[in-house]
Amino acid sequence: MLEVRHFDIEIGQNKIMLNLADAQERGLNPGDRVRVRAKGASTTAIVDITSQMVKQGEIGIFTEALKELKEAKAVDILPAPKPASLCYIKMLMDNQKLREDQIRSIVQDIVDNNLSDIELSAYITASYIHNLDPQETEWLTRAMIETGKRIHFDVHPVMDTHSIGGVPGNKVSLLVVPIVAASGLLIPKTSSRAITGAGGTADLMEVVAPVEFSAEEIKEITETVGGVIVWGGATNIAPADDKLIKAEYALSIDPYSQMLASIMAKKGAVGADAVVVDMPVGPGTKLATPEAGRSLAKDLLDLGERLNIRVECAMTFGGSPVGRTIGPALEVQEALIVLENKGGPNSLREKSLSLAGILLEMGGVAGRGEGYKSAEEILTSGRALGKFREIIEAQGGDPKIKSEDIQIGENCEDILAYSNGYVVAFYNKRLVEIARIAGAPADKEAGVIIRKKMGERVKKDEPLITICSNSDWMLDSATKDAKRSMPIVVEGMLLERYPNVKEI
Amino acid sequence: MLEVRHFDIEIGQNKIMLNLADAQERGLNPGDRVRVRAKGASTTAIVDITSQMVKQGEIGIFTEALKELKEAKAVDILPAPKPASLCYIKMLMDNQKLREDQIRSIVQDIVDNNLSDIELSAYITASYIHNLDPQETEWLTRAMIETGKRIHFDVHPVMDTHSIGGVPGNKVSLLVVPIVAASGLLIPKTSSRAITGAGGTADLMEVVAPVEFSAEEIKEITETVGGVIVWGGATNIAPADDKLIKAEYALSIDPYSQMLASIMAKKGAVGADAVVVDMPVGPGTKLATPEAGRSLAKDLLDLGERLNIRVECAMTFGGSPVGRTIGPALEVQEALIVLENKGGPNSLREKSLSLAGILLEMGGVAGRGEGYKSAEEILTSGRALGKFREIIEAQGGDPKIKSEDIQIGENCEDILAYSNGYVVAFYNKRLVEIARIAGAPADKEAGVIIRKKMGERVKKDEPLITICSNSDWMLDSATKDAKRSMPIVVEGMLLERYPNVKEI
Repeated sequence: MLEVRHFDIEIGQNKIMLNLADAQERGLNPGDRVRVRAKGASTTAIVDITSQMVKQGEIGIFTEALKELKEAKAVDILPAPKPASLCYIKMLMDNQKLREDQIRSIVQDIVDNNLSDIELSAYITASYIHNLDPQETEWLTRAMIETGKRIHFDVHPVMDTHSIGGVPGNKVSLLVVPIVAASGLLIPKTSSRAITGAGGTADLMEVVAPVEFSAEEIKEITETVGGVIVWGGATNIAPADDKLIKAEYALSIDPYSQMLASIMAKKGAVGADAVVVDMPVGPGTKLATPEAGRSLAKDLLDLGERLNIRVECAMTFGGSPVGRTIGPALEVQEALIVLENKGGPNSLREKSLSLAGILLEMGGVAGRGEGYKSAEEILTSGRALGKFREIIEAQGGDPKIKSEDIQIGENCEDILAYSNGYVVAFYNKRLVEIARIAGAPADKEAGVIIRKKMGERVKKDEPLITICSNSDWMLDSATKDAKRSMPIVVEGMLLERYPNVKEI
Repeated sequence: MLEVRHFDIEIGQNKIMLNLADAQERGLNPGDRVRVRAKGASTTAIVDITSQMVKQGEIGIFTEALKELKEAKAVDILPAPKPASLCYIKMLMDNQKLREDQIRSIVQDIVDNNLSDIELSAYITASYIHNLDPQETEWLTRAMIETGKRIHFDVHPVMDTHSIGGVPGNKVSLLVVPIVAASGLLIPKTSSRAITGAGGTADLMEVVAPVEFSAEEIKEITETVGGVIVWGGATNIAPADDKLIKAEYALSIDPYSQMLASIMAKKGAVGADAVVVDMPVGPGTKLATPEAGRSLAKDLLDLGERLNIRVECAMTFGGSPVGRTIGPALEVQEALIVLENKGGPNSLREKSLSLAGILLEMGGVAGRGEGYKSAEEILTSGRALGKFREIIEAQGGDPKIKSEDIQIGENCEDILAYSNGYVVAFYNKRLVEIARIAGAPADKEAGVIIRKKMGERVKKDEPLITICSNSDWMLDSATKDAKRSMPIVVEGMLLERYPNVKEI
């Protein structure tokens, strides 16, 4: 028996620590698995080894594992085999084809936290280097769907929308969902929070309503008001994705087959019959060229067909932000202005109507080529605004919210043009970075208002952007960053200046 | 300022844990780096995020990082860039060529524990999938040498020997090192402990002498008595290797270029001029065919040339164990019997003389083709035994040790042949497993004595192997395993038996 020392730390999986001598005596190495047995309880755990942290005869047990062992004071250990999925990950490294049950086993072990970071990373890295074939990608998607919660609607068709991201200020779902729901179609939109951006759709919606709901609640709200805009991460829908994203983020990679599977798994899990995928194309986005977009679109359509989900892809202009705001509250305000038919940027209005129009056509409530017009009619009639308010109310927000009620960070500062001229360069990523430094998305009221876009005429000392924040020092460092990074470049008659040349 | 909570656990690198809200406020994700600043101290650490382990306003700091922060009670954090080596690991994933400084940066970060498990695993996995080219492998080897301790001898040539492993009972270094040292050449042999085997050369030598020495001590002992047999892991020689092995073991992979570099880095770091590499070939070894052996030999010679180290490779018979013992004490006893010229197995004597002979020729103390004879002369004259005793004494052991003094586990059990016949199959790996179950290598006196080898005639109830252990229950489970796994298969006139057919 080994005496238990509780390491009071949650590390996300079952882990124990042995003294080097005890490990050697049992032929155990770091990463091996052991069956840990206490009175009336047992569990499998990953072995780590120390020469100092625990003495011989002791075993360090982290919180998760100790809970499963009912806080035992003494335990036995026996060697246990490593998960079979490790063999399949090795096969992927060797570029061998995987069977459906093998892919399923990998996904199940990811969901169950049975893989160590080393093992999970090997899977991500191998799947980045060796793409899965279409059949394997289908199996991967199905495994991701089946290892999480699923929603089955009684009424069909169920519509959904997804953006592959890469363009800032993309608040279109706040318009698309109410327009589609107002047409009578169902649209249970699960969305993400920002990881490297200034606000995901979930961060935006949270400005006006709660976004964390169970699968059952999503079904109920959608069946009642036609749509939801919620955070997928709260719902255990395709949960493998959340674990994979952690490792993908750490390595700054986005394995292609995994990306396809992750997109379609989230749609499949909510029972979508038809999906429109927004694919921003252009420098700085994920798709540099229309060719890259077409190739991705082909693969998404193919995967959709295998899963019995109709997919249409819309390549959209990704060269500059959608609308003129970046940051949760600013974006919600802008979306409300369009919904209220009080103006708002054309780029936002047109993109939203185009995407919604495609869904209306796919859902059979508008004829081919008639979707945009139908969507526009729903928007201008005020039915979209009404539906948005119904959704807000159903999610527990205030349905009387108006664009002018949205609170924006109380400290704002303009970045002014150095000279007369035109906007000749426009750096999306730098704008996002400025919004993040100002506090977005954690500070929902922080962000950037874009005053001048690509090609627009600018007079010296006119504002190019306005930065807003609730924190003095964050506003200050965002302002400094904006002056240094020059996200919007104006050039006129004066082409260079000595000294103080700005490098771009 | 964040209030420090000490997580009293050594986890091998600088790590901190933030509350989710604090992380979001600062735009930090798991795996990001932060500069942690306290009064008069600062360090860089890897971020992990929790919603429960630390409260908002707190920071959990693990032992290593807190030591660097001088046990501070409160700290500031600032975002810090990830190590540049991550970009180079990404390049390796993309199969792009790396420059010398880029490879160096990866190795340095591995040695400094700057990479998380996820990042380290990505490197191992990518280098398993994409081999480095010869130039990159040279740079990798040089980086591994230069990031650790090095020994510079004043006298040359310095000889060394290495086995790529894969055959059990391979105690040849216990003979090769004294023979070569007795010839007047220097041979500072660093060796490993068993990871999945029943005893590495370091485990064996430890039966008769201490094996943990600093680089300075290795140099001094080698210059005094001509050779050492020590544990490389105690010496900080090519320390990257130890960290890489952990991840390679966890994934059960042995990336080819990394293997080449690891072998030659250990040799380069001790200042070797000439190396003989033992390459056991045959089913169950790492080299299934002579062709595979020749290809590896070519790559080792090429790498040696780049590093100015002369390499010769010896393909050796790997089909059955070297000698007739597996397990530290048993192997040392067998080696001593040969050194004492009291008999011992031919396979051990011949293999040791062949390898030593090659080194005598490479070192210029025997003519081409005369090495084996010279080695034999040194062995039979008793000079090899005398030198082994000098080395034992220099390392702090008892120089008067004799083969009959070696203690073997006090409980032994024979596994008997079921029938008359011949040994028709012989499974090395099963024998190693039995020795490990009996307690080897932690129980130095545990192991297996092989009574019958491939092709030998066996009578019913003659012992095939003898298992020894100091533990009753370990002997018992090793015996059960041996009867179930049938490491040595005898077949005679009787080909099948019903019931009780044994599946092999």
